[in-house]
Amino acid sequence: MLAITDHGQVRELRLNRPPVNALSPELIVSLRQAFQAAAQDGAKAIVLSGAPGRFSAGLDLPLLLKANEAEIKTLWRELYSLLRAIATSPIPTVAAITGHAPAGGTVISLFCDRRIMAEGNFVIGLNEVQVGIPVPPVLVSGLRYVVGCRYAEYLSVTGALISPMQALQIGLVDELAPPEQVVTQAIAWCQRLLSLPSNAMTLTRQEARADLAAIFSSDLGPEVDEVSAGWWHPEAQRTMHAIVEKLGKKPAS
Amino acid sequence: MLAITDHGQVRELRLNRPPVNALSPELIVSLRQAFQAAAQDGAKAIVLSGAPGRFSAGLDLPLLLKANEAEIKTLWRELYSLLRAIATSPIPTVAAITGHAPAGGTVISLFCDRRIMAEGNFVIGLNEVQVGIPVPPVLVSGLRYVVGCRYAEYLSVTGALISPMQALQIGLVDELAPPEQVVTQAIAWCQRLLSLPSNAMTLTRQEARADLAAIFSSDLGPEVDEVSAGWWHPEAQRTMHAIVEKLGKKPAS
Amino acid sequence: MLAITDHGQVRELRLNRPPVNALSPELIVSLRQAFQAAAQDGAKAIVLSGAPGRFSAGLDLPLLLKANEAEIKTLWRELYSLLRAIATSPIPTVAAITGHAPAGGTVISLFCDRRIMAEGNFVIGLNEVQVGIPVPPVLVSGLRYVVGCRYAEYLSVTGALISPMQALQIGLVDELAPPEQVVTQAIAWCQRLLSLPSNAMTLTRQEARADLAAIFSSDLGPEVDEVSAGWWHPEAQRTMHAIVEKLGKKPAS
Repeated sequence: MLAITDHGQVRELRLNRPPVNALSPELIVSLRQAFQAAAQDGAKAIVLSGAPGRFSAGLDLPLLLKANEAEIKTLWRELYSLLRAIATSPIPTVAAITGHAPAGGTVISLFCDRRIMAEGNFVIGLNEVQVGIPVPPVLVSGLRYVVGCRYAEYLSVTGALISPMQALQIGLVDELAPPEQVVTQAIAWCQRLLSLPSNAMTLTRQEARADLAAIFSSDLGPEVDEVSAGWWHPEAQRTMHAIVEKLGKKPAS
Repeated sequence: MLAITDHGQVRELRLNRPPVNALSPELIVSLRQAFQAAAQDGAKAIVLSGAPGRFSAGLDLPLLLKANEAEIKTLWRELYSLLRAIATSPIPTVAAITGHAPAGGTVISLFCDRRIMAEGNFVIGLNEVQVGIPVPPVLVSGLRYVVGCRYAEYLSVTGALISPMQALQIGLVDELAPPEQVVTQAIAWCQRLLSLPSNAMTLTRQEARADLAAIFSSDLGPEVDEVSAGWWHPEAQRTMHAIVEKLGKKPAS
Repeated sequence: MLAITDHGQVRELRLNRPPVNALSPELIVSLRQAFQAAAQDGAKAIVLSGAPGRFSAGLDLPLLLKANEAEIKTLWRELYSLLRAIATSPIPTVAAITGHAPAGGTVISLFCDRRIMAEGNFVIGLNEVQVGIPVPPVLVSGLRYVVGCRYAEYLSVTGALISPMQALQIGLVDELAPPEQVVTQAIAWCQRLLSLPSNAMTLTRQEARADLAAIFSSDLGPEVDEVSAGWWHPEAQRTMHAIVEKLGKKPAS
């Protein structure tokens, strides 16, 4: 469910869980392990990509609605671990957002060094509220870092799904590219970084991203508990079941 | 001096103190009470509007220049209470800025969830410095939240009054509308929020706006004292009297 | 190496160290002293300018590569003192960026109240990483204040040198002007500020810039030590020598 390809020093982690790259507990764990393994394996930068037109549809709701309390708590704990791994990655990471990236699709790109998105009729945004789930605090903090307080409030509260062009204007993504060149441009950006004096780049990157890493420096256990409890709120359950119903009861996996 | 109209679940508070909706001590208290009463009365969102072409001219200087020290201190304490009530409102609030909104007009819109302003030949901005009054610290903090540090410094120090279009570009307002549609669009925005799963929206809104509410979480008594003292600085008195003189000694009320 | 001219109440400090206004230890000290003396001499605002087409090329690498450890530590300590003097200046300061302003050229403009840059084929940016030097933490903080977290990370990590137009779009400069009018516009901006009620403007400026001044309020001795040590990192030495080699071994002074 994760295709790993090395382009020289740049390792591409390609989400490969058809049909829509929905995030299952297993994929989340694999992704975190892959982020952590990359530097250990000698990679110098990471590109996180998806399928053409489908970066990731976010959490696999049909699957997760069958999970029990313990499994849901594990899910969130693992998702937080993945985000921490990205935010504190010792090597640069770029999200090559190859297509639709609602909710969890946006979430896994938020803590990368850079977001390059495919031009076209795609959506991006934290639509958690529309699914009945309060946006977890770490995500609000991540949004503030990327787009500032005002847009962080707007995006999280309204759950707006926006176009690549709007995302560029707001700063939710840094760059647009023709769909077939998103990965190429992400790799090229990594290579430009890697051509820089590496000690200077690495130390500066660490300093510049300190505020982002700090989001994960306190004990987030209580927050994970609260977020997990939110999953079981009647409104969340009702909304998620209605959405899955509407999807024709076809599990995304 | 305040017209209250319920549009379904959205309560409109319309400033109605001709000719220019200048803020008198009584209006400030009424406004704070109305903000607090709305949720208690069952309203689910608040639209703060003004007269066509005149949102609010800010503090009623001709009236306030006749006030004594105790009254001025009460004025600022009450204004701070109003801003706290808006910043911590349990239900969404939108400023429908129907026209001119200098100084206090901007102030009362700054802590709302959203600012929608009438297109046209209107001004908005914190021109306190031009009136001889240092910008109160809570307002600088509010500005930083809305427009970031750089523009907060620019707007507060220069006291610039800018056009709706410039305000949109800077982020001081979120949306423009034809004058006759400002209130309608504000109500529509509230209704879109209210169509969302309400527990998720409410909790996310609380989290996203935590930094704004935090501005009012410490004891602001000493700050109110300092701001009140600033009113009596010879430069402030000289400047305000000259401005009122120029207005033809006609009290705005 | 520093030409001082009073335009009424506005004092212009013009960098005058041909051919490229490279920053030598002496110039850095002179500049700090001139910033501190201005208010004492009765000036009400400061314009920092350079030569036509050449604001400042940044640190004088050919000269500094001959310095010993103690001299390099003194250099950084003095540069930090200069930046603190600008960030905490009791009177407004404007950088009239008359031309190229890479690295140190950007650094000395970053803590001014405003940056007005010459239109044209010039570059600005913190390209320290490209020179092999990690961007000092105070500069990352200054960048965050001016352009926000996302662009601060981008500019510092990549070391990008950008055009005046790009700098305007990002917010790294506030205003562009035809080259021959940069200084005039900077003086005019100061004069507009000085036409405001001065107590109100001064107190508001102090409040608005408090976050910028706070960058220098803790003991930065350990940071200066670390930054100085970075100068002697083999990568930094190798990179700087290669750059100076390429410049034809002609000292910029």
